[in-house]
Parts: sequence; structure tokens; C-alpha cells
Amino acid sequence: MTDALGLEGEYPEQELPLLIRRAGMVEWHDGAVSILDRRRLPEEETFLVCTTTVEVAEAIEAMVIQGAFSIAIAAGYGLALTKGEEPAAFYVAADRLRKTRPTGLALNRMMAVCVKVVEDAAASGLNITSELLNTVNDAAQCLARQGWRTGMRAADMLPEDGGVLTHCFPDRSYAYMLVALRRSGKNIRVFCSETRPYLQGARLSALCGQQMGFETRVITDGMGGWLMHQGEVNAFITAADRVCMDGTVCNKIGTYQYALAAKANNVPYYALRQSGPDRESASGSEVTIEYRDGEELVNWQNRRIAPAGVSGHYPAFDLTPPELVSAIVTDRGVFAPDAMDSYLAAPPFVENAIL
Amino acid sequence: MTDALGLEGEYPEQELPLLIRRAGMVEWHDGAVSILDRRRLPEEETFLVCTTTVEVAEAIEAMVIQGAFSIAIAAGYGLALTKGEEPAAFYVAADRLRKTRPTGLALNRMMAVCVKVVEDAAASGLNITSELLNTVNDAAQCLARQGWRTGMRAADMLPEDGGVLTHCFPDRSYAYMLVALRRSGKNIRVFCSETRPYLQGARLSALCGQQMGFETRVITDGMGGWLMHQGEVNAFITAADRVCMDGTVCNKIGTYQYALAAKANNVPYYALRQSGPDRESASGSEVTIEYRDGEELVNWQNRRIAPAGVSGHYPAFDLTPPELVSAIVTDRGVFAPDAMDSYLAAPPFVENAIL
Repeated sequence: MTDALGLEGEYPEQELPLLIRRAGMVEWHDGAVSILDRRRLPEEETFLVCTTTVEVAEAIEAMVIQGAFSIAIAAGYGLALTKGEEPAAFYVAADRLRKTRPTGLALNRMMAVCVKVVEDAAASGLNITSELLNTVNDAAQCLARQGWRTGMRAADMLPEDGGVLTHCFPDRSYAYMLVALRRSGKNIRVFCSETRPYLQGARLSALCGQQMGFETRVITDGMGGWLMHQGEVNAFITAADRVCMDGTVCNKIGTYQYALAAKANNVPYYALRQSGPDRESASGSEVTIEYRDGEELVNWQNRRIAPAGVSGHYPAFDLTPPELVSAIVTDRGVFAPDAMDSYLAAPPFVENAIL
Repeated sequence: MTDALGLEGEYPEQELPLLIRRAGMVEWHDGAVSILDRRRLPEEETFLVCTTTVEVAEAIEAMVIQGAFSIAIAAGYGLALTKGEEPAAFYVAADRLRKTRPTGLALNRMMAVCVKVVEDAAASGLNITSELLNTVNDAAQCLARQGWRTGMRAADMLPEDGGVLTHCFPDRSYAYMLVALRRSGKNIRVFCSETRPYLQGARLSALCGQQMGFETRVITDGMGGWLMHQGEVNAFITAADRVCMDGTVCNKIGTYQYALAAKANNVPYYALRQSGPDRESASGSEVTIEYRDGEELVNWQNRRIAPAGVSGHYPAFDLTPPELVSAIVTDRGVFAPDAMDSYLAAPPFVENAIL
């Protein structure tokens, strides 16, 4: 298993899970942004085509796309849909996009870089849209390379035979990990915690697992701890919407209690974070946890699951303290949660990465 | 708050939550067994009317009714539907009923007692059906009294102001606890973990909370630990399908990881067990965890939530070790999990209780 295989290696792009392909995230086509509608997987592979910044912002809010990095790329393209030759309109648009999801910082970072690109382009008389597209395309390419490297590292950390539990959809690093596992010949069984209310685990993670040929089983969000206790899980693996400099992991709600269960049962918890910690965020106390509309939780396929008048309570993320995290797996290496400074000090895996 | 108010006290039966009323469990009417179909709550209050033992067995398997004690009562009436004047037919019927759900022991106990009743009636020339009905009616009445007493004790243990988290539907002891809380004037907010896949929390516990006038909110099964960490939960409360003599609590899957989170966050975990431990069960190692069809988990309202070919993995219960249990709340008092012998030694609250 070496880098020489490249991102796809012996797997032609079309044989990879849709969610790992470039088209399975978000792409720019002829002045429009095409986003794979993850809400409709696995039933349908449909793409939402947005032609305005606001449409992209609303798609992010409605969870057409999810995951801190994927959201950031979508927002970058969304900004490129803004018309104008002066920065002013882009400031407004970036602000709209930045407000879609408050918890991950990759979005903020992408918007800050893009606003700078707009300003520089305007000052130099360059085409703003082209400059933005170059920036976002580069960022997406960096992410893919970092994700692949991270996925390979994660695959190396797993035993020759065992079970892996994931929560929510840990995005491309996870999908690349599956690719690396397939190549390595390790015998890994995949448990996907369904991840209510949007079921990213049952729909997206399970789809990746199945498409890569793994024995894949879905569990409810109440089952992971017990599976760990029963010895069926050798590693608990998630992505991270934010990693603070103190090693706190912010991820989909439910991660914290699984991390507690992992610790109690001597199961390692690995957070995949392809580009390392968010250096702007010192500790968990600085994280804004997004609260979403409780109605999303008590309504299912337009059918109410709770009595009329009973609301849902919906924090979308939680914080896992560093003492519950075994390692942060990144493009630059595998780090203890209290060694986030070492990530920053390590040689970059890709140059000039934005996210 | 005294026993002098009786089971209903100042609340007329019809003002109590349906699920606490006698009709809200299972009743015998004119040679048929009427079971409230809990699967269809809260949308519809419909009753499944069974006229054969097998119909009752299938209703239990299909989760028309749930909860170890409620199942036992339903099975008792189900046995009374068996025709015959010799014990032989009842042995077969009791065996069929016993096999419906393997984890709780109340069902076994009820069947053992009922078979004895059948044998005694046959030997004495008494009407078998009448004798069975007397036995099951008595058992149900004992359960109600024990549940009420248990609920009152649980209410006493809660603070004047705070949040309570439940998982699954902790049945009548919980509903009685809400009655006692209302009378006491304590300001309790109720969080109901939805409890996938059958959503007993979102549907049944939330219904009880709402009908008793509590501020009631539904969360996903991944959220409870985080709410504890955030200080929003002052007690985690469940029922128990089985309590072993070593204090191990067997309850709906998801209980274990919430109990871990409760311990980690200094939140007490109280298991409501109106009639104390299952003396036939020394420890958790003796418990048969029911595995249900994984298809129940990946199908929702006849719509598949996971990719075709991906199965669900569905242990229906888990075991919480005694070190994670703060107290077992019973009709005879509140006991530490390592003091189950003390329950047996304490004066009975009801005489001749079967379950």
C-alpha cells in the first residue's frame, strides 16, 4: 500500500463509491453548482443544481450536503455564483454562506480565503469568478489528497480482522480508508450507527461500505456501546467537524457518548481529520454548537413520530474531550489529542492547503 | 403525597394517561383479549382483539404490547383463550407464549403459575378459564399497586426542579411517577429518548409526559449523554425487563451506554422495578439477549432506510452492570444494586404477588 497508486490507483473512478468521487460531493459546471443530494441516497442519485449563492446557502442549511469540508467546498462554489466586479456583493454573499452552519470552522476559513481572492482579483483587474474557481478547485484537490493519505493511515491502524463502528458519515477520509482496507486485504466488518435524525450512517456510510464490498450492518444509535462491550468493535471511527487545539473533537451528536463507551471498553476512538486541528479554536468552550429545529427530529417522511405538541430538542453536535480520544488521524501523521501543536510543526503533506 | 389517595386519588381514571389505565394495557372481554396497539400510538388508539392463544402470541412478538410485565399479563390472558379441559393443551399453549420474547422472566413466571393453576383446576374439577382469569386479574391488580408505590418512591427521589431522561417506555411505574410528580408540584422537565427502531420513547413516554402536563421533549438516542454532560438531566430513569440478583439491569438496548454516560457525569441512574429482582437470575451471564430481525431496523413505514442488501443488527436488550446503577426502585423500597437480597428479606408490599 503506497502513495504510488495515486488517489484512485487500481480502482477506476467509476468503481469507487459515488461519495468518494469528485461528482459525489459538489462540482462547478457551466456557471452552476451541482451538489449530490445526500438526503435522497441511497434510493436516488440526484443532483441539485444551484445557480445563485442563496440557493447554495439554502442547500447547505437543508443538509443536501454535509460534513465540514464538503460544506466549505460547496460554499466556495456558491460564492463564485455571486455576480459583480466589486468586493461589496461578495462580502454580503460570504456572510450569508458563513451563517449556514455555525459549528465547523472550515467554512469560515474558506470564506476568509475567498474574500481575499475577490479583493486581490478586483484590485488587479482579474476575473473574480475565475480566480475563485481556481481557489476552490485547488482546495478540493488538496482535500482529496489529504483524505486519501488520512484514510491510508487509518487503515494501517486497524487489525487484520475485526469490526469498525462509525457514527454519521465520516466523509471522504472514511471512504478512502475503505479503499485502503480493500487493497490491504484486511477482514473488516463495518457497523454503521444510523445517526438520527438524518440517517447519514444508515444511508451514506452503509452505502460506502457496501459499494466497497464490506460486510456492512446498520445499528441504531443506542447500540454502539453494547457492541463495544460485546467485543464486536475493535475501533470507533468518526470524522470531526472541528478539532480544537486542546484535542477536543466536535462532531455529530452521539459521538460523545460513543467515545465514553469506547473508553470504558478499551476500544480506541480515532477521529479522522485530514488537515489537522482548527488552529483558530483553542478549546471546546469556544465551539458554537448548532441547534437545529426540533421539528426535524419528530417528523419523519412527513409523518410525525411524537404526539402533536411535543417538540424535539436537537443539538446537532457534541464535544468529546481529549481524554476520550485515542488519536487524531491526519494527512501529516497520527497524533495524540494533546499533541495538536505537533501537527502544526510537522512538514506539510500538501503545500498551501486552505482547509 | 400518601397512599391514602389510592391508585387514582384525585385523578379520575379517564384523566390519567391512557397507558396507565387498565384498558391501556390488556383486558379480557367476553372471551377475547383486547390489547391496546402501542405500535399505532400516538396517532390512533386502536385495540387488537385476539380470540386465540396464537393471536396473542403473535401480537406479543409483533410488539403490539411491550414491557416485561405487560407482556406477562397479556400472555396470561392469552393462555386463558386456550380451549380444553385437560392440562395438555395448556402446556403447548404456555410453551408457545413463553417463546415469544426470551429476555424478560416475568413471562416465564406467569406461565409457570398459570400452568399450576390449570393443573389444580383440572384436578379439582374447577373451570380452568375462570381460575386462570382470576389469577391473571389478581396479578394485574398487584402490578398496578406495586407500580403506583414504585412511582411514588421514584418521584420522591427527584429534585424540586430538574430534568429527567427516560429511554424506551418504562411502563406503568413511570406513568405513576408522573402522577406523583404532578401532585407533588415538582417542576420536572421530561426528555424522552426516542428509542429506535420502535420509537417507544418518542411515542409512548412522550405521550404520557404530555398527557400529564409536563414539558416534554424528544431527543434521538445519540443525545442523552450530551444532555447529561450539559447538566440538563438530573436523573436517568428506565424500567427493567430483568433485574438479576447481582444488581445487573437488563433493559432496552441503549440503556447501557446511557448508564455509562450517567456515571461519567454524576447523574444518578434509577431502574424502576416494581416487584424487585428476578430471583431466578443470579447474574447477567444468565440472560438471553433477544436478537430481533435486522430488517425491522432498516425498514421504516415500509420504506427502506439503508441500501438494499445491507442488513440491520438488532440486539433488543443490553445489560447494565451494577456499578453503573444508582438504585433499584421497588414497591418495598429503594435498594442499592448490591442489596437485592434485602428486597427479598423486606416485608411484602402486596401479598401473594405473582410477578
